[in-house]
Amino acid sequence: MAKVESGRRKIEWVKNHMNVLNYLKELYKDEQPFKDVNVAISIHLEAKTAYLGIVLHELGANVSITGSNPLSTQDDVVEALKEYGLNVHAQRTLDQDIYWKNIEKILESNPNIILDDGADLGITLMNKYPEKVKNLWGICEETTTGVKRYKSLYRQNKLPVPVILINDSYMKYLFDNRYGTGQSTWDGIIRSTNLSVAGKTVVVAGYGWCGKGVAMRAKGLGANVIVTEVDPIKAIEAIMDGFSVMKMNDAARYGDFFVTVTGDINVITKEHFLKMKDGAVLSNAGHFDVEVKVKDLEEIALSKREVREGVEEYILPNGKKVYLLGKGRLVNLVNADGHPVEIMDLSFSLQLEGAKYIKENHEHMKINVEPVPYEIDQKIARIKLDTIGVTIDELTQEQKDYLNDWK
Amino acid sequence: MAKVESGRRKIEWVKNHMNVLNYLKELYKDEQPFKDVNVAISIHLEAKTAYLGIVLHELGANVSITGSNPLSTQDDVVEALKEYGLNVHAQRTLDQDIYWKNIEKILESNPNIILDDGADLGITLMNKYPEKVKNLWGICEETTTGVKRYKSLYRQNKLPVPVILINDSYMKYLFDNRYGTGQSTWDGIIRSTNLSVAGKTVVVAGYGWCGKGVAMRAKGLGANVIVTEVDPIKAIEAIMDGFSVMKMNDAARYGDFFVTVTGDINVITKEHFLKMKDGAVLSNAGHFDVEVKVKDLEEIALSKREVREGVEEYILPNGKKVYLLGKGRLVNLVNADGHPVEIMDLSFSLQLEGAKYIKENHEHMKINVEPVPYEIDQKIARIKLDTIGVTIDELTQEQKDYLNDWK
Amino acid sequence: MAKVESGRRKIEWVKNHMNVLNYLKELYKDEQPFKDVNVAISIHLEAKTAYLGIVLHELGANVSITGSNPLSTQDDVVEALKEYGLNVHAQRTLDQDIYWKNIEKILESNPNIILDDGADLGITLMNKYPEKVKNLWGICEETTTGVKRYKSLYRQNKLPVPVILINDSYMKYLFDNRYGTGQSTWDGIIRSTNLSVAGKTVVVAGYGWCGKGVAMRAKGLGANVIVTEVDPIKAIEAIMDGFSVMKMNDAARYGDFFVTVTGDINVITKEHFLKMKDGAVLSNAGHFDVEVKVKDLEEIALSKREVREGVEEYILPNGKKVYLLGKGRLVNLVNADGHPVEIMDLSFSLQLEGAKYIKENHEHMKINVEPVPYEIDQKIARIKLDTIGVTIDELTQEQKDYLNDWK
Amino acid sequence: MAKVESGRRKIEWVKNHMNVLNYLKELYKDEQPFKDVNVAISIHLEAKTAYLGIVLHELGANVSITGSNPLSTQDDVVEALKEYGLNVHAQRTLDQDIYWKNIEKILESNPNIILDDGADLGITLMNKYPEKVKNLWGICEETTTGVKRYKSLYRQNKLPVPVILINDSYMKYLFDNRYGTGQSTWDGIIRSTNLSVAGKTVVVAGYGWCGKGVAMRAKGLGANVIVTEVDPIKAIEAIMDGFSVMKMNDAARYGDFFVTVTGDINVITKEHFLKMKDGAVLSNAGHFDVEVKVKDLEEIALSKREVREGVEEYILPNGKKVYLLGKGRLVNLVNADGHPVEIMDLSFSLQLEGAKYIKENHEHMKINVEPVPYEIDQKIARIKLDTIGVTIDELTQEQKDYLNDWK
Repeated sequence: MAKVESGRRKIEWVKNHMNVLNYLKELYKDEQPFKDVNVAISIHLEAKTAYLGIVLHELGANVSITGSNPLSTQDDVVEALKEYGLNVHAQRTLDQDIYWKNIEKILESNPNIILDDGADLGITLMNKYPEKVKNLWGICEETTTGVKRYKSLYRQNKLPVPVILINDSYMKYLFDNRYGTGQSTWDGIIRSTNLSVAGKTVVVAGYGWCGKGVAMRAKGLGANVIVTEVDPIKAIEAIMDGFSVMKMNDAARYGDFFVTVTGDINVITKEHFLKMKDGAVLSNAGHFDVEVKVKDLEEIALSKREVREGVEEYILPNGKKVYLLGKGRLVNLVNADGHPVEIMDLSFSLQLEGAKYIKENHEHMKINVEPVPYEIDQKIARIKLDTIGVTIDELTQEQKDYLNDWK
Repeated sequence: MAKVESGRRKIEWVKNHMNVLNYLKELYKDEQPFKDVNVAISIHLEAKTAYLGIVLHELGANVSITGSNPLSTQDDVVEALKEYGLNVHAQRTLDQDIYWKNIEKILESNPNIILDDGADLGITLMNKYPEKVKNLWGICEETTTGVKRYKSLYRQNKLPVPVILINDSYMKYLFDNRYGTGQSTWDGIIRSTNLSVAGKTVVVAGYGWCGKGVAMRAKGLGANVIVTEVDPIKAIEAIMDGFSVMKMNDAARYGDFFVTVTGDINVITKEHFLKMKDGAVLSNAGHFDVEVKVKDLEEIALSKREVREGVEEYILPNGKKVYLLGKGRLVNLVNADGHPVEIMDLSFSLQLEGAKYIKENHEHMKINVEPVPYEIDQKIARIKLDTIGVTIDELTQEQKDYLNDWK
Repeated sequence: MAKVESGRRKIEWVKNHMNVLNYLKELYKDEQPFKDVNVAISIHLEAKTAYLGIVLHELGANVSITGSNPLSTQDDVVEALKEYGLNVHAQRTLDQDIYWKNIEKILESNPNIILDDGADLGITLMNKYPEKVKNLWGICEETTTGVKRYKSLYRQNKLPVPVILINDSYMKYLFDNRYGTGQSTWDGIIRSTNLSVAGKTVVVAGYGWCGKGVAMRAKGLGANVIVTEVDPIKAIEAIMDGFSVMKMNDAARYGDFFVTVTGDINVITKEHFLKMKDGAVLSNAGHFDVEVKVKDLEEIALSKREVREGVEEYILPNGKKVYLLGKGRLVNLVNADGHPVEIMDLSFSLQLEGAKYIKENHEHMKINVEPVPYEIDQKIARIKLDTIGVTIDELTQEQKDYLNDWK
Repeated sequence: MAKVESGRRKIEWVKNHMNVLNYLKELYKDEQPFKDVNVAISIHLEAKTAYLGIVLHELGANVSITGSNPLSTQDDVVEALKEYGLNVHAQRTLDQDIYWKNIEKILESNPNIILDDGADLGITLMNKYPEKVKNLWGICEETTTGVKRYKSLYRQNKLPVPVILINDSYMKYLFDNRYGTGQSTWDGIIRSTNLSVAGKTVVVAGYGWCGKGVAMRAKGLGANVIVTEVDPIKAIEAIMDGFSVMKMNDAARYGDFFVTVTGDINVITKEHFLKMKDGAVLSNAGHFDVEVKVKDLEEIALSKREVREGVEEYILPNGKKVYLLGKGRLVNLVNADGHPVEIMDLSFSLQLEGAKYIKENHEHMKINVEPVPYEIDQKIARIKLDTIGVTIDELTQEQKDYLNDWK
């Protein structure tokens, strides 16, 4: 099939399953809230992101779009997207230069609003094109890692515009990070390896929302789960959820599968690789390819080759093999199709509402790093319930009064 | 066995399993931080609370103690406690007057610090004995319902002292509300009824931390779970956890067991009772006996009798029976022994640290309603890990730097 | 409350929840199938067993009844049962002599049919009263251990009458052994200890149907589960279910709770006790009190005392404490109320149907050890579905033909 | 990559993870037990089956091999297999004729032993080439559907050789049917649709071992599960496992995903399609493409097109869409890579041992349809435990004696 047709079909599939976004599109169709607004997007460029771009485009925006990770871009989707009239610059590649050139091309659009995933787009603008800051009203940031970076900028007083932390909004982290990462990580691992999860020991590094999702699904698939953590509170949560907790140095020898979701660097390194079982499978579901220290692997390995699509075998000096999935990049995006559509429907509806909020309020917004206003979370949740036909109870006046009463 | 001996044995058992509290007792033994401090406690008076009182006593405090619910007091524990030298006024009773008289007797001690559970003690002091406020340094509040009441007072500018919200501290709500309520609620229901949870439909009203725990354990025991909610975000969480969500009006006809954990009134009322299956079992795990509207039941029932210990059968006008556990009061405390010991070890260690924090800082604390400082949460978590022999990873300097870096 | 009243209430409760048995009682009421038949029962004598006896009595049988374990008898139920007109000889006691004397008193009734649980009644008849064999038409055996004993007799050609293996019938072992033992074992452990299961390591010895149930519920309550086995196939099943498998010698040091369900002797012995953590809790859910080798405990312990009802603390020479529940007897029956009512409804409906089958067919039954005929299993299952209002699909003729077709 | 290289890599991957089969290969290498034996294989022809063929070849057999379903054959594996010196005739195709011609080509080899999956190979031999029966020593049948067909032949006295029911052996059905089908079915559905399983309603038709696996994993992935059954005992099992049970006619309106695993025809038909939600996803994990009645779909649909790889959209007269995966054929094989490697390692080790048993015993085997001898199950289980480094307890003599004792 032609690339463009393949991409178009993927986008249509997504469109058919993003009912909250479709609801919002319908709601705002006449209003055209983004008319003449320049929106620049840097989010993993597969069909779901593409459809967010299309919806913004249909609501009036001038949309420029690229990926947020060199290997997570799907080229057929890129081709299709061009036909929808968007300004697209993206390519699946191992060449970092191309990735950064695309970022810069997007910035040529002089964005008023940036939808970012990992903060590469926003931070590049601030660093390299300070003159463009004056056009910029605000940023919506999708993911934990980007939030961390923007918060750091904010603490150092270097943030020139407000950032809405999509990631820290309820309708994002409660669902995307947990259920999204949980399912899609295992999708990536299973389809890459065709190995059984049941009966295996899975080591999950990090027990934040993403780690909780990855561990929960590993258990649901029949694994015995070990969690590693640096935060004692999260460690106890993992224990109370029935998991073993230990240092990576100890866990290294037990794991059949390793998944890193910490947001930090060098979580699994040389000292750990050398303790692993023959055949251990390494994967990362955190934003950047820094959690499994691939450099160490490359350094110590006697040989390396691709043995299945997206699976590289490293032979270690001790004669054992370890398998690295997706080059240590986000396994759910590089070795699979990313989060389930309905999950991204929630996250991207927040992006749309966040962008709309910036457009309408940027003149009096303080420079800050905060989630979407709670009302937006509630609104998205109510629409979601509607789209799946669920009705819930409402507080009676008597119940409201009781809740506000201290007697 | 003599009551006092029975109570003493219960307390000893608890002491043998509250290792975090024991660690703190040892740590502060020489310092005697509560020397000459009047501490008044109103928390469900069974062995775990008793032991908290004893530890405070051993650390120098003048402890006065009563229960926080007329039916959750265990009389043998009360008898034993007297022998430890504490000022105890408490009694298991259906007589509300006795309950309130005990509260007042406790207040005669002119407390400097109040450890409260549901806010009855603190609010009575403020309302009826305003002259005692000047001796009061601060309050630690244990539970969601009390938090709600103190927050309401705070919003109305009627709070005269700072309140530390134990309930809103990580080491409390993540564990006590979820795993504590989860296990002990089902302990209460199962031992009262000897009925199978597997194969049944359980309706959980409220999907906060307590509701999550109750639903999770119902699932773990083999039930099919329906959740009712008023918050659309929590409703979606329940759905994503694999549960059905609907209005109570619809759920009423499906449930074999009902558990309310909303913190609000009149969650299950006449209109629901009349839709229920013959043999439906009603229970409450929220703080007050207002969630299942017992008044409605009493009003419409043709007859009522106790058919097992803690189980009352109501025959409805439609000829069907429903069973109410523990008179609609906290089923885990009235029909069982409350939360597991190790869970309360965490919550009560926070109480101890909260009280110590008030003692040391009350002179410059602002009037506020806040959880314990995060450092206390971390401290308790680290001690807990130590007591169970778990060691976790620590961030390297490189990792810390990375987390603080926005580049 | 008077004992007889307490027992009567327990039986009434059970009656209200044994709908399959009630259905059969109604069905056979006019027929009186057990008229003039002497039925002797030796099954754990609590309310559910009592009600089975009552139903048989109401269907015409002369019922003599005792317990099947000295400590599982509930004295209030015994008192009540006498008032129903049954010939009862039973007593909760630690005195084995009394147990065996009761067995013998029951045998004075010259039973035509024996309903046995553990084979004590049937085997005593054969051994000590061979002259009574001529009146005996057949036996229904309730549990794994009794099945094992009768099968052993059969293999040695020493079985004088047919034995229907209730235990090996689908509607028994699929439900009673798994969901019954699973729930009631944890009921016994939790109410005896008030300790948290979440966050603990549970060692389950034996992964037959009972062990599967105990492990499944431990997991459902938040534990990390280790299984020990002697059968390699069951061991792999446990691994594939996400559990760790190791030798008891290795597991001994990890367990917080131990549950034996093997049907064999000396599963946990001196060498294991001495490796255990301080505070380990020992319990047995297998038929006889031989799995945890209590004799070893008694031998090595420096001291022993009851620290909670049904919990004995042994102090070992290494200074550590271990706690033994229910003296190593069936923890679900000695420290709780046994299996859930609805589960026993299925098992006891099989007993009723098994007894009826023996009565109607004993003249031409071969001496054999077999489950109930499959039709009886199906019948009980269909009635159960009816009583809970579930309807299922039926095969069309076309579908039946397809299933019988090899083309 | 060249097809042959792609296939070779897949086979190597499998080889690296089939440790039981590798163990047996090593064990029998010198003996060459299949020297001069003609072995014909008809099993889903992807890498795992290929490797079984290669091992038999290395142990001396003349191996002829084809697939067992037109769409489950992987062409790159076929190409690679030719290079290993096997007689291969197979092709991924929608053309049934090609499928049957390949079957016939395989039969030209005059097999002594047939390894069958669905019984097509064996039954074709019997029906069309009766003269070849005299060379045939016996058959090993892999799957439920084939077992059903051979049993039907046996009951009708038409079976000319013994059939070893691999499917009915413990080490097959306990693992392959449950954990294999469970994981691989969801792998197929998730990678085809990129939809969330969490928060969805899944209808599983059939609660045999395969259905149990599919339902268990659906639950583990966060779904709410409805089971349909025709067997009342299995229906109650499903209920006790926490699932809803109802007729397909009722379930049709609730399901987001449907999975059939009944082994029977016309489980989901026109009347059900017309009740489904817009967007319902239909899939089959039973052997033949007869469970979802595709003919009905084709008949009533207004239009049909492929919207993602392996996903066909049918627009129904009521305007709703339903999606059919893999044309109603085995979704785990057509839309994914089939069962996990380690699971097939167990099943195929049984095939190898079954074939060896036939070779060594065919002269005095009775014509029968039976699982492998229990010793083979035990042997495979023990090797598996060895390969994953797990050691288990062994019965002491005392324990063995106790088990055999009826006293």
